[in-house]
Amino acid sequence: MYYLYAIHQTSMNKEPKKYNIAVVGATGNIGAKTLDMLVERNFPYANITAAASPRSVGAALRLSNGAEVKIRRIDDVDFENIDIAFFCAGSSVSSEYAAKAANMGCIVIDKTSFFRMEENIPLIVPEINIDSLSNSKTSPRGIISCPNCVAIPLSMALYALISGGLIINNVIVSTYQSVSGAGRQAVKVLRSQSLAILNGDNQEKISSTFPRKMAFNAIPQIGDITAPGAYADEEEKIMREVSKIIDCLSFNISVTCVRIPTFVGHGVSVYVELNKVVCLEELGRMFKRFPGMSFDSRRDYITPVEVTNCDEVFVGRLRQAGNGYLFWIVADNLRKGAALNGVQIAERLIKLDPDLYKFRQRKQT
Amino acid sequence: MYYLYAIHQTSMNKEPKKYNIAVVGATGNIGAKTLDMLVERNFPYANITAAASPRSVGAALRLSNGAEVKIRRIDDVDFENIDIAFFCAGSSVSSEYAAKAANMGCIVIDKTSFFRMEENIPLIVPEINIDSLSNSKTSPRGIISCPNCVAIPLSMALYALISGGLIINNVIVSTYQSVSGAGRQAVKVLRSQSLAILNGDNQEKISSTFPRKMAFNAIPQIGDITAPGAYADEEEKIMREVSKIIDCLSFNISVTCVRIPTFVGHGVSVYVELNKVVCLEELGRMFKRFPGMSFDSRRDYITPVEVTNCDEVFVGRLRQAGNGYLFWIVADNLRKGAALNGVQIAERLIKLDPDLYKFRQRKQT
Repeated sequence: MYYLYAIHQTSMNKEPKKYNIAVVGATGNIGAKTLDMLVERNFPYANITAAASPRSVGAALRLSNGAEVKIRRIDDVDFENIDIAFFCAGSSVSSEYAAKAANMGCIVIDKTSFFRMEENIPLIVPEINIDSLSNSKTSPRGIISCPNCVAIPLSMALYALISGGLIINNVIVSTYQSVSGAGRQAVKVLRSQSLAILNGDNQEKISSTFPRKMAFNAIPQIGDITAPGAYADEEEKIMREVSKIIDCLSFNISVTCVRIPTFVGHGVSVYVELNKVVCLEELGRMFKRFPGMSFDSRRDYITPVEVTNCDEVFVGRLRQAGNGYLFWIVADNLRKGAALNGVQIAERLIKLDPDLYKFRQRKQT
Repeated sequence: MYYLYAIHQTSMNKEPKKYNIAVVGATGNIGAKTLDMLVERNFPYANITAAASPRSVGAALRLSNGAEVKIRRIDDVDFENIDIAFFCAGSSVSSEYAAKAANMGCIVIDKTSFFRMEENIPLIVPEINIDSLSNSKTSPRGIISCPNCVAIPLSMALYALISGGLIINNVIVSTYQSVSGAGRQAVKVLRSQSLAILNGDNQEKISSTFPRKMAFNAIPQIGDITAPGAYADEEEKIMREVSKIIDCLSFNISVTCVRIPTFVGHGVSVYVELNKVVCLEELGRMFKRFPGMSFDSRRDYITPVEVTNCDEVFVGRLRQAGNGYLFWIVADNLRKGAALNGVQIAERLIKLDPDLYKFRQRKQT
């Protein structure tokens, strides 16, 4: 295979194409991990442009391969000369700059929630719906959205069952989410609050990062809750995004999001009702054969600490529960939950169309 | 009311009765909290006998009112002279000594899981089924069992709905359990593992207390898992005990137990399917009026850190979810989840029959 490819390359008398990449929000948890992923996975980049908030501008960022990248202001990035830009800097930056960049011919892979639910903006988990990019009837807008860090592994586990020929009727989810999902500052706050408590300083630390004290606590609120009886923002995101990714609104999905004092790795406790009775072995096989997913009945489960820096989505604790089934999912929220998924999208784009023409913004004809 | 009572006492020319109490396992998390509760709630004790493992014997235990109690070997406790003994030392101690103590006329309130599922041993949450003690057709065996720390608040929340006239069809539960439920050593292990990590020492600490590293992690296993696809011990306990306490096997209940790095306070994420559609306000009122339970729609939820040292079971995050409802429960697992529930049982016993005759072991006639 590789041999044929090499011949093909030679006969074309052409180097494999390389791409100009930008990472916006390069110093944040997800931006930094995106840079790591690009290097680690040998993404064919010609050069990398890193943009971040004003306080980091001018500093040099050292990549994991030793190369240095100077941090720029986003206004100084020439998106006309960028092939693919990863936006990892928060919704406000995406709202201001992503459409502009796409308009200049750059393909934006947006890690924020800003465009996720917009019609005609694809919301992509490569293992599930990358084909929708080629099949789309609408003109591309040059922006591809990357789902929420829980929505990605959860969609994959549910889609593994759908791919196995099952129909899902009802999904009940409780999450165990790490603080890295709330950004770099949140990690610092958990560290400092934890140290203070362990050192006997139980004074209430005020931190706007979390709605309550985070250290040695569990907070059943991620994002705003607008009214009593309402779902929190994060819960709404997950429910809506899973429905959009799987493109199947026939089942009910209800989510409770809880932030717990872990640094990396989101755990998800799932209950599903299916259209028929299936033995656990068969369900296990569906998880096992799904790309990017790991299921090992001999090792009953993986924990967030163990999943840190792993690419796979791990499923475990599979059990029967009345008329439904229970299982536990865990994934590195910075990798498959965010940066890895984005880089995987880019990898698929350049494979589907090395010139990226198909995916760049085009005016509606 | 108090006035009449006082007259009654005087007319009887008799001091209010006082009781000889024993706490077995007095130095453990639950034993120590039981001593606190007896003092804090002014339980009418004549004296307190404390028993603990050999390494503590001879030491003096200072109660929260300043009194000192010398720790004895359990073999040196004369259970014939004890009215009520709280067994908080683990199943093996209960298995060896509880029946002997009951046989000597002492009433055993057992905090361990040893007798919980035995027929003719009442499993009591005072707010739910204290009346079953008086109504029982079978002779008392002198042992009253205290449920699991999640089973207690969960049963209360479910029973609040049943008391409101609702029928429950299906219950799906995910827990967020603190390490104090695993004993005093577990608290130490979490502290030392956490400090090591915060100080940059990421070496794997071997600890038999938890099946995986506990600090900054979530472990979806509490108790043994005997085979792939099996429920863990703790999950089995909760499912069986809730069914016994509520005395209603008509609904399915499925539980996933997860240990998280909190010190005190268990969180529980619950989904219930009911026999009819009820508005959230009505459900909230059912929770609110249930004894020992707090529900405040203006404060959407309470966290484990906030519930520490509170007696109430707090319900929050009440939401509609397809054909069911979601809510979040949190309770101090050492108080209402264990010690408080035990002391409340004792309080009710001495009220129902000050001589305790009704509850002491009697031979089957």
